[in-house]
Amino acid sequence: MQRALNVDRSRFADWYQAVVRDADMAETSPVRGAMVIKPWGYGVWEQLQQELDRRIKATGHENCYFPMFIPLSFIAKEAEHVEGFAKEMAVVTHHRLKNIDGKLVPDPAAQLEEPLVVRPTSETIIGDAFSRWVRSHRDLPLLINQWANVVRWEMRPRLFLRTTEFLWQEGHTAHASQEEAVEETMKMLEVYRSFAEDWLALPVIAGEKPENERFPGAEATYSIEAMMQDGKALQAGTSHFPGTPFAQAPNIKIQGEAGPLTFCNPPSGGVSPRLIGGVIMTHGDDDGLRLPPAIAPRQIVVVPMLRDKPEDAEVLAYCESLVAALSGLSVFGQPLRALLDTKKIKSAEKRWNWVRRGAPLILEIGPRDAAGGNVTFMRRDSLRDGDKVKSIACSRAEFLEEKAVQLLAEIQHGLYAEAKARLDANIISGVTDWAGVEAYFSGDEDAFKGWLKVSWSRPSGAELDAVEQKLKGLKLTIRNAPLSQPDSFAPCLFTGKPGVEEILIGRAY
Amino acid sequence: MQRALNVDRSRFADWYQAVVRDADMAETSPVRGAMVIKPWGYGVWEQLQQELDRRIKATGHENCYFPMFIPLSFIAKEAEHVEGFAKEMAVVTHHRLKNIDGKLVPDPAAQLEEPLVVRPTSETIIGDAFSRWVRSHRDLPLLINQWANVVRWEMRPRLFLRTTEFLWQEGHTAHASQEEAVEETMKMLEVYRSFAEDWLALPVIAGEKPENERFPGAEATYSIEAMMQDGKALQAGTSHFPGTPFAQAPNIKIQGEAGPLTFCNPPSGGVSPRLIGGVIMTHGDDDGLRLPPAIAPRQIVVVPMLRDKPEDAEVLAYCESLVAALSGLSVFGQPLRALLDTKKIKSAEKRWNWVRRGAPLILEIGPRDAAGGNVTFMRRDSLRDGDKVKSIACSRAEFLEEKAVQLLAEIQHGLYAEAKARLDANIISGVTDWAGVEAYFSGDEDAFKGWLKVSWSRPSGAELDAVEQKLKGLKLTIRNAPLSQPDSFAPCLFTGKPGVEEILIGRAY
Repeated sequence: MQRALNVDRSRFADWYQAVVRDADMAETSPVRGAMVIKPWGYGVWEQLQQELDRRIKATGHENCYFPMFIPLSFIAKEAEHVEGFAKEMAVVTHHRLKNIDGKLVPDPAAQLEEPLVVRPTSETIIGDAFSRWVRSHRDLPLLINQWANVVRWEMRPRLFLRTTEFLWQEGHTAHASQEEAVEETMKMLEVYRSFAEDWLALPVIAGEKPENERFPGAEATYSIEAMMQDGKALQAGTSHFPGTPFAQAPNIKIQGEAGPLTFCNPPSGGVSPRLIGGVIMTHGDDDGLRLPPAIAPRQIVVVPMLRDKPEDAEVLAYCESLVAALSGLSVFGQPLRALLDTKKIKSAEKRWNWVRRGAPLILEIGPRDAAGGNVTFMRRDSLRDGDKVKSIACSRAEFLEEKAVQLLAEIQHGLYAEAKARLDANIISGVTDWAGVEAYFSGDEDAFKGWLKVSWSRPSGAELDAVEQKLKGLKLTIRNAPLSQPDSFAPCLFTGKPGVEEILIGRAY
Repeated sequence: MQRALNVDRSRFADWYQAVVRDADMAETSPVRGAMVIKPWGYGVWEQLQQELDRRIKATGHENCYFPMFIPLSFIAKEAEHVEGFAKEMAVVTHHRLKNIDGKLVPDPAAQLEEPLVVRPTSETIIGDAFSRWVRSHRDLPLLINQWANVVRWEMRPRLFLRTTEFLWQEGHTAHASQEEAVEETMKMLEVYRSFAEDWLALPVIAGEKPENERFPGAEATYSIEAMMQDGKALQAGTSHFPGTPFAQAPNIKIQGEAGPLTFCNPPSGGVSPRLIGGVIMTHGDDDGLRLPPAIAPRQIVVVPMLRDKPEDAEVLAYCESLVAALSGLSVFGQPLRALLDTKKIKSAEKRWNWVRRGAPLILEIGPRDAAGGNVTFMRRDSLRDGDKVKSIACSRAEFLEEKAVQLLAEIQHGLYAEAKARLDANIISGVTDWAGVEAYFSGDEDAFKGWLKVSWSRPSGAELDAVEQKLKGLKLTIRNAPLSQPDSFAPCLFTGKPGVEEILIGRAY
């Protein structure tokens, strides 16, 4: 069977690269570890960003912009923080270039007194601002969000999933009490969960990270975890409750009417183009990308079937009127995004371009459609009937009045349901000892493996380190302890002590 | 007369700082040369960005994202380019921090083989991508836009106007012919002009920059220039036609069906938070900022006049229903942005907060308004009648059905008309010799001076250098040669040779 890609999902890593390349999403750049996000990939990012921004603002956050350079002394203050980011940061040491002996070099006369670090995250610089902004409890809660680029030096980059520079969103808030801060932490986790599930069609498990996987300095870190088609987990968003000690780092002290107040600063973040990688690895098939309609830069693409004949003009006019009518429709609470593909390449080439790019509905309109007032379309989510590409026809009126919006909603829900079924079927309960873990994860490392749900006693210190090492031997990590838990627990699989919760273990990106 | 600011426009530089601070737009940061953009300032930026993005996309551009780090070798290739940016760039030399003797320092073992420069602009890295993306004339035109942060080291920073790091937008395109490239250059200039005038209410003069003010390497640079309330010019957008030689730098060669094609890469850019500085300096008054309604994050702010009395509940409910009704209206093609100010501070304090921030319409709603179904409002554009703040009352129905949208449009047009009258009145023609220039610009440097429109013979080389030096003595620069020109010209004011166009000279930010 001919496929639109030259590699299928059985070679998952190669397949992923092929999808990114053939869907024209992104490419590596001459700068080590960095990527170029191309129009189709950036278009998906814009859809993600707009919707998440809307949802974050709806919780009362306001956007700000803070400097990307952070004085080294700020970083040094947060010792734990620095360890957490493994110190892999880009360091600016000079502010001028100079031509010395015909060679352009950093000007030795323009060395900075204090080196600057390119933000790996903005905790310290935002904390510094909060210490000026919060003067009394009337200034609370303070809910700030930032969209920005951050840098964490990456030795083994991978497009979308792991790059030295990446775009992201980070929320930072200050509250008058610990209760409010905890409430905020859980609220943002829920924003991420609902966004991932409703908008990206990514079913996720929301839960708490174990101590060893916490955000540096946080008292509790929560995540949402999605399962890729190779079974591996992708952390798709995090929300942290740092507790008071973390917030005190920038020396914030406020006085309230009722005496000193608890002050907290729960950051949430991690929503980045990494999610686009998650969408690709969750919804892609052997023909390329399948985009959930809610985030497709173009939800319906109209390809006119031209043959250099007189009736071409009629076909084009019919297509133009179709795109205009579609653009007047509304779907997912927004104007429908339709495109007429007028590129001067063959129609068949256009079809496969849009198949690989994952446009949800592709219309191929020929002279017979134009003359008969019909529409012939392909659904990207169920492109084939066996080896054959499925074309469906209906009247223009039916398509505009009913089908277009209905099909997009159906595709959105269908992609979610397919991924949800996979997630549910591959969270395995019932393994109670380490031998069972080894048995499940034995064999070919690239073969599909789901996650095990096992009982856990919340060990810490040396006991937790030992578990971590043991898991590492099988390339496993604890993903999280799901928020939804049963009433009673078997003894902990690792320590044999009484279980207090269930955790998910698996391989991860 | 009591004003909302403690400094008036007669001390323009101090007044500017006071407006930025008291309108809570931005603040300096602990990082030299950088700024923190606070929610109200960033809210204005979001309005600017969304609208300009919409207009740029309407011309066929697609957004991308390119790496912020640029290899030093890329910069070195563009010798002219480097000179143009005065080499004041942030240079990354290390990718790791290390704790040495208890001090966090750049790790000597993690020095980069090739230093990286933080983009001062993205010409080189986008040109590199274009050389891979353009394979045949079917790939043209290629229309790319990027929203990003850039860095140009700044020794004398000024909030919004001049900061080391700033946000901006840069367009880069490739075309099959020089004609198309020139057309694109002028099209983007027109996008900037109409955006500045329609949306920011900033009247501008579009024109061509003289040779010495061109973008490094460009064959022609066009700008739009706005006049601030101290008469100084602010360059509010630029569009460049680099010509073929510039485009060939990254070794782009394509073959078309009709043999080798001309290839060009006209960049356009310069739309940055600097424009917010321009808005402040154009529309602000002695009470603070006045925002054109099209870019006000909140166009109508409702302040409930509460007195800790039982009728407060009724007032609040009335205000809530008012804001809900206003939010359902549409103005400038978008949903109206209304806010209910529920902060726990005194109503009078709220009024002055919104006056200083420049909210176009401020509603103060008391028990009598609530009971009588009325609305009492202040127009920020014409706040006072002499010393007195003007309050206007009308019925809720009239305000919702007519006044709200009509007043916002009126304020938008009024601010533009006021600035346009100032611009027109202060472009002075008729000066024909250098003595006249000296006479006009003599005296107190901080006093208001407009621009002179003088005849010009387009000198170049040493002759142009001499003019530049002469102008520099009076702190003057040539702003541009307006696109709209008369039919004949007096002899050039500087060279005495036959004039070929008129240029504007003045002081500038």
